[in-house]
Amino acid sequence: MAEKNEIRVLIKGKVLTLSGYEPVDYQQKIANYVNDKFNECERLNGFRFLNSDTKSILLELNIADDYFKAKSHLEVLEIEFEEKNKEIDKLKAEMETLNKKLREAKNQVAELQENVAASAAQIMRLETEMKKKS
Amino acid sequence: MAEKNEIRVLIKGKVLTLSGYEPVDYQQKIANYVNDKFNECERLNGFRFLNSDTKSILLELNIADDYFKAKSHLEVLEIEFEEKNKEIDKLKAEMETLNKKLREAKNQVAELQENVAASAAQIMRLETEMKKKS
Repeated sequence: MAEKNEIRVLIKGKVLTLSGYEPVDYQQKIANYVNDKFNECERLNGFRFLNSDTKSILLELNIADDYFKAKSHLEVLEIEFEEKNKEIDKLKAEMETLNKKLREAKNQVAELQENVAASAAQIMRLETEMKKKS
Repeated sequence: MAEKNEIRVLIKGKVLTLSGYEPVDYQQKIANYVNDKFNECERLNGFRFLNSDTKSILLELNIADDYFKAKSHLEVLEIEFEEKNKEIDKLKAEMETLNKKLREAKNQVAELQENVAASAAQIMRLETEMKKKS
């Protein structure tokens, strides 16, 4: 079983001990991101004058917006990914058909080459006989 | 220029007026999500006994975790998407080669068929001459 990791982080000026199964650097990355988003909000007009609860809600909506944007991008990409998979399947099916046609054409070439060789031999035999008779 | 949309939402028991260029249903979706995440946190052991600031930070970390998970999934999919594009390019190049080989084989079949027809005519001519002489 994975061990729990503990890490002390400073978020929005408050020291907090986080504990979880995620790696320490992942927990730190998330804490840094929340701090960065908070600092971004702090630069917005009027944000500083809001009370702590409203500030938190706006920060949460802001982070949730990042989440929904990433999720929506993910959903679009998943659809495009499926389309790519279908395109690959279609191309592979076309390749199979082409390979079959190529095999058939090569067999036809081989048969015709045999036919040409046999005809050449027959022509030579006939010409030799003709010479003997003349 | 797009108009600003205003919407009154209830988040974490607080009524707030949101204003932004995003559609109203998107703003409502984000507000619902923040509420759901908050209710999820409220069901965690000990969460109810934390002070409001710590609750908010944990909620923010929780939402940020969703964001990073989606982002990481997105990054993996973007790499796989690029690989699919490369696979498609490779298959298309292979298809082009196969099409070229098939065209060549068909030309060869046509030439050989002409050759076979010419030989058959020559054999017929020689056989007729032979009959006349005998």
